[in-house]
Amino acid sequence: MKLLIKNGTFVTMNGNETIRDGYMVVENDLIQYIGKNKPIVESEYDEIIDGKNRIYMPGLVNTHNHAAMSLLRGYADDLALQVWLEDNMWPMEAKFTNEDVKWGTHLSILEMIKGGTTSFVDMYDHMDEVAQAVEVSGMRACLTRGMIGFGGEEVQDAKLKEARAFANDWHEKADGRITAMMSPHAPYTCPPEFIEKIVQAAQELQLPIHTHMSETQHEVMENEKQYGLRPVAHLQKLGVFDQPCLVAHAVHLTDEEISILKEHSVHVSHNPGSNLKLASGIARLPELKKAGVLVSLGTDSAASNNNLDMFEEVRLAALIHKGNTYDPTAIPAIEALRLGTIDGAKSIWLNDVGMLKEGMKADFISLNSNQAHFLPKSDVISHIVYSAGASDVQDVWVNGKQLVKNKELLTMDEEKIKFEFNARFERLTN
Amino acid sequence: MKLLIKNGTFVTMNGNETIRDGYMVVENDLIQYIGKNKPIVESEYDEIIDGKNRIYMPGLVNTHNHAAMSLLRGYADDLALQVWLEDNMWPMEAKFTNEDVKWGTHLSILEMIKGGTTSFVDMYDHMDEVAQAVEVSGMRACLTRGMIGFGGEEVQDAKLKEARAFANDWHEKADGRITAMMSPHAPYTCPPEFIEKIVQAAQELQLPIHTHMSETQHEVMENEKQYGLRPVAHLQKLGVFDQPCLVAHAVHLTDEEISILKEHSVHVSHNPGSNLKLASGIARLPELKKAGVLVSLGTDSAASNNNLDMFEEVRLAALIHKGNTYDPTAIPAIEALRLGTIDGAKSIWLNDVGMLKEGMKADFISLNSNQAHFLPKSDVISHIVYSAGASDVQDVWVNGKQLVKNKELLTMDEEKIKFEFNARFERLTN
Repeated sequence: MKLLIKNGTFVTMNGNETIRDGYMVVENDLIQYIGKNKPIVESEYDEIIDGKNRIYMPGLVNTHNHAAMSLLRGYADDLALQVWLEDNMWPMEAKFTNEDVKWGTHLSILEMIKGGTTSFVDMYDHMDEVAQAVEVSGMRACLTRGMIGFGGEEVQDAKLKEARAFANDWHEKADGRITAMMSPHAPYTCPPEFIEKIVQAAQELQLPIHTHMSETQHEVMENEKQYGLRPVAHLQKLGVFDQPCLVAHAVHLTDEEISILKEHSVHVSHNPGSNLKLASGIARLPELKKAGVLVSLGTDSAASNNNLDMFEEVRLAALIHKGNTYDPTAIPAIEALRLGTIDGAKSIWLNDVGMLKEGMKADFISLNSNQAHFLPKSDVISHIVYSAGASDVQDVWVNGKQLVKNKELLTMDEEKIKFEFNARFERLTN
Repeated sequence: MKLLIKNGTFVTMNGNETIRDGYMVVENDLIQYIGKNKPIVESEYDEIIDGKNRIYMPGLVNTHNHAAMSLLRGYADDLALQVWLEDNMWPMEAKFTNEDVKWGTHLSILEMIKGGTTSFVDMYDHMDEVAQAVEVSGMRACLTRGMIGFGGEEVQDAKLKEARAFANDWHEKADGRITAMMSPHAPYTCPPEFIEKIVQAAQELQLPIHTHMSETQHEVMENEKQYGLRPVAHLQKLGVFDQPCLVAHAVHLTDEEISILKEHSVHVSHNPGSNLKLASGIARLPELKKAGVLVSLGTDSAASNNNLDMFEEVRLAALIHKGNTYDPTAIPAIEALRLGTIDGAKSIWLNDVGMLKEGMKADFISLNSNQAHFLPKSDVISHIVYSAGASDVQDVWVNGKQLVKNKELLTMDEEKIKFEFNARFERLTN
């Protein structure tokens, strides 16, 4: 399969490069050429696309989600994290069956792909359902069975066994589109010994670790009270940072903690929308960036966001730190877009995704630029960051395969997904 | 003309009322009925719409904009307000002709209407062009010639004469869809004597006053240095608050200043997107609300936002104050939506707009709810505030007349507007 796109505007994320009236050649799963030169022979292509009125860019990478929780979108809002989680989310999630997770995940995947997200991280339960959904969807994903350590050693061991089995079954499967991690849910939900066991398993399986960390002030204080350490030192002590590690949130950090994260090359998934909605606070993104910590963006679940539009997270990352620090240069547009693309890919150890460049995987999207909010033709990166949204996505390719064409999802039945999803919600709430 | 909408979901903004499977009757420019009762005789209607998979709600009200500045979208970003304004915006705006303002405004109106905004405030120059654009578009608008007082008394008098003439020509015109205000641009651009003259003119003409106020810390400090007063006391002293008054921004306020605004029934247009982008700060919305100040939402211009999507402003108002105060109940979803609808209408002295209720003007929109990000059918107000965007708008009516049908603008030629707009941008930058 050989595809030529001509006359397109390409935001490559190779530095701040924008190629206007350019060409891109995709052969099978790889980008073979991108640049200003017109190929002489057009006949050798299976498909030629006229990219006029289209902006091409790498697909967005969502580095923190619990996809099945779309079933709880709008179910409980405007509550503090602990109340929201313990009194509203957990009781409902306890009812979730395989089928619920299946259709909740399908709906989130539908929303994510159509909105230009090509890779995502998912931490949840019933993970076989999630992996199967990813496999059929054509997306890329980094998946992990999230382990909450309540209920004693037997329950913990069963969960760890399940997490290991999942990783064994799915790591590097689905044409290499699925990878796995190991996940203690959070320091406040996992006893230290359990976290150590998980770290050991991650070492044996040679897998990264993903966890929630320092999301709220309350959590940090409680951790200090219970263990005499703030979460960063606590996780460091338990060996979590000795493995490749991606932590979600990291809102409440001291300068010293930022240095520890940098020293151990810990990756941070910044979730601005969720952190604002749950009133967790505003993460120290400018300081994290300045220290050289690799930061990416996540929506968190649709229950705390409440959509899975990664353009919004990019925009929030660009906006809120300016307003919060009185510095209009705090996070420039190109930096925010990097968080959502190339840095997202690196954050989940994908080194051939997130940039339009020869030899990279063909994970890319097109936006319809023939709309008022993309005009005038001034700075296309500014338009993407400050003005675009999920609904501007016209086409999506992952691994060289087209998943969305003219806003239509090709790999899954959208109406069936919405129907089944609604039925699951009815069952859960009646 | 008599219209019946059946089987719709209606978010009325009459309290937090949501009517599912309801009916709405519109006769000419007014809502004649809304509720659960099915009309017995369907034959008396000129049009019957099946509202299945549609959410109907009042149109959004954007209470601060400079529409023509869409020509400068993406022209200069990530700069401090004074640098952005004085070194980038003003030199370009000085080049604007009637034609530039015409097509810049047309493009903004196109973006606003298609995105569900039915009323807007515009403060600019070449205002006849703006009023003519509003007239043909079918929108509602509260318009004002913004007066910058640099250049001496003669220039000031000429501007004031122009502003008076504009108000005389256009106030309550276009079937009553256009109203006028008088606008000293800001305390930092207008000498006190000029502001007093404008106040006097507003009194004579019985028009409200609109101005920028306390947008940045820098402005507040400079005002104190120059006049010995912070902007609120300064404007109060000049009589600005003795007229009905709408101030934009009001980011930097003391408790005492909030009390003064309340006492004088000053309305505040909160512009969260622009304030974040220009690093002006985060306004004290929870305190303003608590004090009983009437607050609404504005996008500000597309040059500092950078889109005119009022759903985003509603969402930002709901999100950022939670994150900034660690209080998840700071601005509940329904409160945020009120800012963008009914309170927006009240802010510009429209008492028959902003709510779906018998006797109110038929300014309303429909959203396509058959999309992943509107599911499950849990809390529709939550979905609108936390998940919706301009692109979800399917239909728009203003004053009982349909302006957008299935995403297509009926009153203006979209392709022509984009073409002319692009040509104006080319001229300005070459």
